[in-house]
Amino acid sequence: MVGTVALDTVRTPFGMAEETLGGSAVYASVAASLFASVGLVGVVGRDFPKQHIDFLRSKGVDLAGLETLDGDTFRWKGYYEYDMNQAHTEDTLLNVLSRFDPRLPPEYRDVKYVFLANTDPEIQMRVYEQISKPRLVMMDTMNFWIENKKDALSRMIEKVDVILTNDAEARQFFDTPSLVKAGKLFLEMGPKAVIIKKGEHGALLFTDGQCFSAPAYPLENLADPTGAGDSFAGGFIGWLARTNDVSARNMRKAVIFGSTIASYNAEDFSLDRLKIITRDDVYNRYMAFQDIASF
Amino acid sequence: MVGTVALDTVRTPFGMAEETLGGSAVYASVAASLFASVGLVGVVGRDFPKQHIDFLRSKGVDLAGLETLDGDTFRWKGYYEYDMNQAHTEDTLLNVLSRFDPRLPPEYRDVKYVFLANTDPEIQMRVYEQISKPRLVMMDTMNFWIENKKDALSRMIEKVDVILTNDAEARQFFDTPSLVKAGKLFLEMGPKAVIIKKGEHGALLFTDGQCFSAPAYPLENLADPTGAGDSFAGGFIGWLARTNDVSARNMRKAVIFGSTIASYNAEDFSLDRLKIITRDDVYNRYMAFQDIASF
Repeated sequence: MVGTVALDTVRTPFGMAEETLGGSAVYASVAASLFASVGLVGVVGRDFPKQHIDFLRSKGVDLAGLETLDGDTFRWKGYYEYDMNQAHTEDTLLNVLSRFDPRLPPEYRDVKYVFLANTDPEIQMRVYEQISKPRLVMMDTMNFWIENKKDALSRMIEKVDVILTNDAEARQFFDTPSLVKAGKLFLEMGPKAVIIKKGEHGALLFTDGQCFSAPAYPLENLADPTGAGDSFAGGFIGWLARTNDVSARNMRKAVIFGSTIASYNAEDFSLDRLKIITRDDVYNRYMAFQDIASF
Repeated sequence: MVGTVALDTVRTPFGMAEETLGGSAVYASVAASLFASVGLVGVVGRDFPKQHIDFLRSKGVDLAGLETLDGDTFRWKGYYEYDMNQAHTEDTLLNVLSRFDPRLPPEYRDVKYVFLANTDPEIQMRVYEQISKPRLVMMDTMNFWIENKKDALSRMIEKVDVILTNDAEARQFFDTPSLVKAGKLFLEMGPKAVIIKKGEHGALLFTDGQCFSAPAYPLENLADPTGAGDSFAGGFIGWLARTNDVSARNMRKAVIFGSTIASYNAEDFSLDRLKIITRDDVYNRYMAFQDIASF
């Protein structure tokens, strides 16, 4: 899992959390650790609390790829209003992240399942070029790169097996209101699968000639949606790695497992909920999901 | 079906339609007519084109409850941007609708399935009081009545069997971001079922102790979402009337049938798509829906 390691300060209608553990690589790694062994590639500053290192290790997350640089850890500060699909950023301090040039430890180079979380597509490409013969590479991105580095981003999308975006980004990339059209156009670029996340509204999965519309898991107690997309991604790729099955049928299951873990994650701030759930919890909610979605 | 009959002028990113047939009672009636015999209760002005009357009759919609008053027909003018979940109103001319005081024809008073489309809850109540022993009454509403007539609206919700709102309205009514909480609180007010529509993102159905999360039907060619909620409602209640089965299990199917018809409706302007689809088309897309939603 290649991405950010952050200290987040978040306010939602249900409370706030200051300087808590966050970042795309962290959410994705902890989610995936429910299913598979995980290595995290990222960067932190000298101020990064040791308790977070200990926590990641306790989840079996390998930290050989976590660099520590002089300076402070990346910080994000933001808030959510009642419509929690939309994060409002108040402050971003890149700090050591501005010098992030991920180098994979030698033992990671033949890894089979890779998630390149949202970052500069040129950095994603440099990571990609360090991997030999992966079974599946998935990438995420965001509006900033669509606006500012669309060519580099396109070259990256052409390489990966799974492209993950949210609904607004998919519409923006192809300048179309139709998510189905956007999904098909992404497939034409090269990926074997396209996942369009719709926040609390579920997700769409496009594979060759097929579309899967995954419903949302209806949550009663939503506390903090931070990390939903990354814990979804971690759960998704973790399930594929666990089963070592990248068929369209198994990807549908992986989408539901990803949504399941993301739904747990939103029930508390930071990774507080992911910290305590077990694989049995995930299987139980998967089964509840089947009941909620059947007709 | 009690509601508005309108002449709509609509712009979307895909074109525009001027002075076309619209209105909640029209969309709901035509949708329901795919499954059951329907009577429409509404009002038009002297300017209402005879071709629309002929069309409704051709669909088997009974018009004994359609009053014609001196003056012009209700008109709505609006547009949609790329996020077509949000209608932007440019102009509303109530015209004869301001004098709408629905009186049911005597032969409608023992009707078994009733849809009270969005309107002043005091008018909904006056209609409700004219019906004896219905099997199922469903109502819709909107933010305007939540803000301005919440007491009257609450009294009406206490009476009906099914309350239909969209996600923003449900949150607004109970001042909560949680749709699950809102669904449960609506159930506590009296209805046996609560449907929260999420536009292109599907719908939630709450019944005693159960929640059904219906996915969206992913549309490639979306032209005009006007009438989506009302054609959903018509398809839903039409299916219940056809099967005369108001169990929670059958309501789940009815939600998918409603979504199916609403998805057809959005493929063209006004009722142009609903005009030509058949019950077989609906069954075929229902089956495609099952495939799209299975995991």
